[in-house]
Amino acid sequence: MHEFDIINTFFQKKTVLRADVSLGSGDDGAILKVPTDKELVITTDTLVENVHFLKTTPPNNLGYKALAVNLSDLAAMGATPAWVTMNLTLPEKNMAWLTDFSQGFFLLADKYSIQLIGGDLTQGPLSITISAYGFVPTGTALRRDGANPGDLIYVTHTVGNAAGALAQLQSKQVPDKFLLSCLEKPHPRVAIGHSLRGVASAAIDISDGVIADLQHILKRSGVGAKVNVDDLPLSSNLLAIFGKDKSLVFGLTGGDDYELCFTLPAQYKNALDFPCTCIGIITEDQEYLLQHRDGSVYQTQITGYQHF
Amino acid sequence: MHEFDIINTFFQKKTVLRADVSLGSGDDGAILKVPTDKELVITTDTLVENVHFLKTTPPNNLGYKALAVNLSDLAAMGATPAWVTMNLTLPEKNMAWLTDFSQGFFLLADKYSIQLIGGDLTQGPLSITISAYGFVPTGTALRRDGANPGDLIYVTHTVGNAAGALAQLQSKQVPDKFLLSCLEKPHPRVAIGHSLRGVASAAIDISDGVIADLQHILKRSGVGAKVNVDDLPLSSNLLAIFGKDKSLVFGLTGGDDYELCFTLPAQYKNALDFPCTCIGIITEDQEYLLQHRDGSVYQTQITGYQHF
Repeated sequence: MHEFDIINTFFQKKTVLRADVSLGSGDDGAILKVPTDKELVITTDTLVENVHFLKTTPPNNLGYKALAVNLSDLAAMGATPAWVTMNLTLPEKNMAWLTDFSQGFFLLADKYSIQLIGGDLTQGPLSITISAYGFVPTGTALRRDGANPGDLIYVTHTVGNAAGALAQLQSKQVPDKFLLSCLEKPHPRVAIGHSLRGVASAAIDISDGVIADLQHILKRSGVGAKVNVDDLPLSSNLLAIFGKDKSLVFGLTGGDDYELCFTLPAQYKNALDFPCTCIGIITEDQEYLLQHRDGSVYQTQITGYQHF
Repeated sequence: MHEFDIINTFFQKKTVLRADVSLGSGDDGAILKVPTDKELVITTDTLVENVHFLKTTPPNNLGYKALAVNLSDLAAMGATPAWVTMNLTLPEKNMAWLTDFSQGFFLLADKYSIQLIGGDLTQGPLSITISAYGFVPTGTALRRDGANPGDLIYVTHTVGNAAGALAQLQSKQVPDKFLLSCLEKPHPRVAIGHSLRGVASAAIDISDGVIADLQHILKRSGVGAKVNVDDLPLSSNLLAIFGKDKSLVFGLTGGDDYELCFTLPAQYKNALDFPCTCIGIITEDQEYLLQHRDGSVYQTQITGYQHF
């Protein structure tokens, strides 16, 4: 089986077909139609073995996650996913691996009726680049630069679970099932992203930890924040295994959560109908304060994951 | 300098700004407007060190070429380039390398007024994934599936030069300057692609050799071809260094040409106003014949480059 046979067998034949795709994969490029009242949102992420995932990650979960992290970016923009391209670099052609990987990928792609419209397959060190394409009604995309003083800061669901699972794996423990599923099969918050359009003033997905990612909103918006670390939503599984202090470090600085962090004008706070928790408030003075409920400063030197 | 500083210093600050970009890089995704009378064309390619390029390739040429191979795909669709994303995986942060690489990249991007709208930077084995986005008036994109019996088969400019340069490099000779420039700084045939809209019945860019790439047109169009190998356009530099027989092998089976191969209803043959050569004719019988001018069969076992 050669490059083109592999693509055809594992990927091309299995994707959904959408009416807005004039021509999908198999040519020099795909030909697409964007609805006239919509803007196109484009996002892309690369996952490299031993940097973004452990060699032991099941290929099924890897296929799922490579797409999930990109859908999470679309969710943070409030976009509805439509298409995806995949550039897969593999050390060898391994049919079992490709079967599992593509199943995991299409499990999530099919859930959102996303069409795989192209990509390529090359030989080399294992690496997956996915680009995801979605639509937003013109002018309604969520951005990082709209937070205003007085806006409340929210986090969806719970954070730190993926970092907890990674810590267990790295210390050779059997990982907690819930934590492991947060690490390997995160839920992109697509529906939440939609419902935040026209409501949230800024949003980001949490891939490098709450501290680092909220900071992107603050920088782009030119504002500061007061965060009450004791309000950070932590799962009972994480707390039971690691205790309060360590769980908090995971929640604030761990990567791979793929929850949304967003800011909200206070008048909308009763409109939120999904799991989320207010963790602080946007301030005018551009300072970034992490404090306990009693007002004492939260001490940490740890920040989010940095490449280089 | 961290990930975000590198992106900002070498890439974000240096790109052109286009009116159809509502939001460029620096958020979870870019927000784009596609003109209402246009379709969007998307293409993507990954270059891996030691697979697609030698370790000795100057970073400036690598930055140029990584974009050029994608613009070549847009050219083969007849599309006008607009935006690009770049996923760069680097073993280490090397400021001199990044300076040279980004200069080569923007040399070509600026020439076509292309805006870099996003991407990511990760640590790992050297690899570059670029996705390129262009527009075509709705319904006019060039595809691989439109060739009809009786159509003439053309190749632009000359082929085999890049393969010649690679052979020289691999045998430790000083490469010919013209051949090396074809290998490292190919010219994407964007203007030719435009002028083929509404004229050519099918088109492809030659990245894996004329034999292999023409075959994609034949398969997708359900037709055959008679190619006169003696008509293949070969450069005087290539012929002077390698002689007729070897040059022909490079031209037919060498990779990395990034010329266009297209099929043309015979009535348009006087309309072509750019360098190109007719090398054969499309046939109904789905056979793929390579022959000499005297009608004898051209003998070769070599086909295009295959991953895996």
